Amino acid sequence: MPGPNKKNAAGSRESDEQALFDAFARLKNRKEIERFLRDLTTPAELDAFAERWRIARLLDSGAHSYREIAAETGASTTTVARVARFLREEANSGYRLVLDRKNR
Amino acid sequence: MPGPNKKNAAGSRESDEQALFDAFARLKNRKEIERFLRDLTTPAELDAFAERWRIARLLDSGAHSYREIAAETGASTTTVARVARFLREEANSGYRLVLDRKNR
Repeated sequence: MPGPNKKNAAGSRESDEQALFDAFARLKNRKEIERFLRDLTTPAELDAFAERWRIARLLDSGAHSYREIAAETGASTTTVARVARFLREEANSGYRLVLDRKNR
Repeated sequence: MPGPNKKNAAGSRESDEQALFDAFARLKNRKEIERFLRDLTTPAELDAFAERWRIARLLDSGAHSYREIAAETGASTTTVARVARFLREEANSGYRLVLDRKNR
């Protein structure tokens, strides 16, 4: 039985993240995604992600102010502003990717 | 412009979660999954998920004790035990789903 290799622990963050993305890529439908997310995340974490995604959709609709979105979702305006920043930034464009696909 | 509807805020948790699962289901490959996750999660959250998934894979290999996995990953034994519980429980079987698919 091999013992734990501490050398692998340091510097494995990038490969651990890639393994996580790989895991998601193996999920075939919404139900499988739900099952994996419910094992991977706590209920509070899942709530927070669902809230951020709702905020992104409300921001994208362009119909509400930050303050209105905060009131509607129960999030802080700081959270709304942070989602707005990620929606605007082009580094990942992950929110934008899904929003554009949704609206096609 | 419609004002925020507070009635929608309460009781929308389930539909917000379903919308999140829908968003993930629109992602077509590992790179898109990475882009969306980097917008949706903080670096600390993403690290935690990558760590939990690594723990699940180490547990599944059957070669290490909880203590060894904790030492190797830098996680607490409490975290290792919690991942082990989700891996064992049949409620979601989300970890199990991906592990079995990976090993086929």
